Amino acid sequence: MADLPTDVSVRVSPGDVLGILGGGQLGRMIAVAAARLGLKVHVFNDDPHSPAFDVAARATTASFADTEALAEFARGCAVVTYEFENVPVPAAETVAAHAPLRPGVRALATAQDRLLEKRFVAELGIATAPFRAVDDAASLARALAEIGRPAVLKTRRFGYDGKGQAVIRDGDDPATAFAAIGGTPAILEGFVPFAAEVSVVAARAADGTIAAFDLCANRHEGGILARTSVPAAVSPATEASARDIAGRIGAALDYVGVFAVELFLVREGGEERLVVNEMAPRVHNSGHWTDFGAATSQFEQHVRAVCGWPLGPTRRLGARVTMDNLIGADVEGWRALVADPGARLTLYGKGEARPGRKMGHVTRVEAAGEPPAGTSET
Amino acid sequence: MADLPTDVSVRVSPGDVLGILGGGQLGRMIAVAAARLGLKVHVFNDDPHSPAFDVAARATTASFADTEALAEFARGCAVVTYEFENVPVPAAETVAAHAPLRPGVRALATAQDRLLEKRFVAELGIATAPFRAVDDAASLARALAEIGRPAVLKTRRFGYDGKGQAVIRDGDDPATAFAAIGGTPAILEGFVPFAAEVSVVAARAADGTIAAFDLCANRHEGGILARTSVPAAVSPATEASARDIAGRIGAALDYVGVFAVELFLVREGGEERLVVNEMAPRVHNSGHWTDFGAATSQFEQHVRAVCGWPLGPTRRLGARVTMDNLIGADVEGWRALVADPGARLTLYGKGEARPGRKMGHVTRVEAAGEPPAGTSET
Repeated sequence: MADLPTDVSVRVSPGDVLGILGGGQLGRMIAVAAARLGLKVHVFNDDPHSPAFDVAARATTASFADTEALAEFARGCAVVTYEFENVPVPAAETVAAHAPLRPGVRALATAQDRLLEKRFVAELGIATAPFRAVDDAASLARALAEIGRPAVLKTRRFGYDGKGQAVIRDGDDPATAFAAIGGTPAILEGFVPFAAEVSVVAARAADGTIAAFDLCANRHEGGILARTSVPAAVSPATEASARDIAGRIGAALDYVGVFAVELFLVREGGEERLVVNEMAPRVHNSGHWTDFGAATSQFEQHVRAVCGWPLGPTRRLGARVTMDNLIGADVEGWRALVADPGARLTLYGKGEARPGRKMGHVTRVEAAGEPPAGTSET
Repeated sequence: MADLPTDVSVRVSPGDVLGILGGGQLGRMIAVAAARLGLKVHVFNDDPHSPAFDVAARATTASFADTEALAEFARGCAVVTYEFENVPVPAAETVAAHAPLRPGVRALATAQDRLLEKRFVAELGIATAPFRAVDDAASLARALAEIGRPAVLKTRRFGYDGKGQAVIRDGDDPATAFAAIGGTPAILEGFVPFAAEVSVVAARAADGTIAAFDLCANRHEGGILARTSVPAAVSPATEASARDIAGRIGAALDYVGVFAVELFLVREGGEERLVVNEMAPRVHNSGHWTDFGAATSQFEQHVRAVCGWPLGPTRRLGARVTMDNLIGADVEGWRALVADPGARLTLYGKGEARPGRKMGHVTRVEAAGEPPAGTSET
């Protein structure tokens, strides 16, 4: 997990090549933002049917274990970034040996292991759910005794959209839960009695400047983000606290680029407090509203940061912005959405609308005085 | 110049292939808009270093005289459009034989010949500068006698950004002017004593619906557009007249897609009137402000129209929007522009900043109550 110090002298110019590890919709939207700023984009992914390939100047299909392919890719790039947190650390290290990698290997390694991530956040003095490492039946029994029920058992690695998780309630057999997540190294987390889920999407520039977008209120369905709304209905103090948390995490990782911190909002005795759930070392689904709803999109902001350019303004462009994910068959409602003058549609160019697959999203920016947007998750 | 009737039944779906003839910055911005709507883009151009190739799922480099390459390209597309008006008509006809071509061949053929274009507009009863066909010294002498001096001699074909034009003033030798434009078939136009240059950028859907963006006030330098500002400082009647002109031209061509009509604004005796200068059967430089400054960009609007989708709303998003072209070495000012929180930068990814070459543009959207944008054409 060797990490190179941030090289603040890295300056990328239009016409230079920005490399992206990973080729999903996040890479696709980063690639579009980079192209709009005159950069050439080279996407590296292991799937020849990658949505980002369709908008990139160059695409390489190779395994993340192919050291030679990674090195050749990196040597042609002025800077490389990644669009998903499960890029194998050795692959990131190979790239970092041949090109500036932003954000760095440390952010990646921390974020892709729930236990390392929780420890990192807790050591900064930032509230998390209570947690214990779980490696086997004995450590699970100890952890359950200390944390109590209900609790959530999560794989340390490769979890997303609610996958790799099992809730253990009164009467549940811990062995069943451990088997359900594959019996792999895990973390047991206490339940947080949250009133709402929020996230802060922020960027940190190479010079340490931090800029956060407005706090996002998120609604999940079946473990998958369904809707993000801004502004979140929280106190100014809570909004400031979220920005402070993002700033401390970004600084501690010497982070360069956009990242997101998912938070639980807890309301107790008339007070609000925030508990960190997890962080994502990349642009984030809850930041998609910024594409039409903020003065700079999270994708452009990420490109600015990793190129060593100044961050753009994060001002929200409407009184209220909502972003609804189009999951699986939702995308079949595209005809109604293109006919809806209040809807701005983004589709990811994915072939098959499998259940649970993120196919696109729709953003609604309401000017002051406009009626609230209807839901249109048809 | 055979033209197929508009097939209103053509319906393109996300995932289908949109073909673009031409690979410049206009094609690049159309391609980005199409990708954001989930379409696959295939760009056909004769230059392997085409800015649009960098954001397209597929690129074909071949001559516009290569009938087989054109046919193969078209057969793989759900719909084809073009991004420059000098696509050879036979090439367009070849494509139209294998795929819906929107806009059609007739709009292309009309717009690429100044004489046909002026006659077409005049026959609609819309004011143009006085004009005469010029084929040789004798017809030039007759035309000059009828129109008077000063007058402008323009090639019928392949003129843009002020190229292929010569002004004939008192004392000028007409033969010199004719030689200066290459002695090719030409048109002599009377001078219009305009107070301002404006343009209307409009879209016509397959079902005949028309939607125009706000009238654009344009300032040219050295024959090249330097700045577009909206709103244009004209009366509501003039704005309505421009929309009416666009509607009549669009309907007469059975046009599908975005087009622009460049107009001279003449002020006489306290009255305003509009005189058509020329039309462009494509997205237009004076419409670039819509990309950040309107509820739908001209690029998305064009994609919607050619796909047979409903047009999007054209509402301006700020009290005032300005778009400054970055011509040639202007682009070297990019560092100042990315550091300017009021500037939204778009670069075209072109390699060499030759004099007169359009390298990018910068858009400024001012909310109500904000101070006017400074000029930053550094």
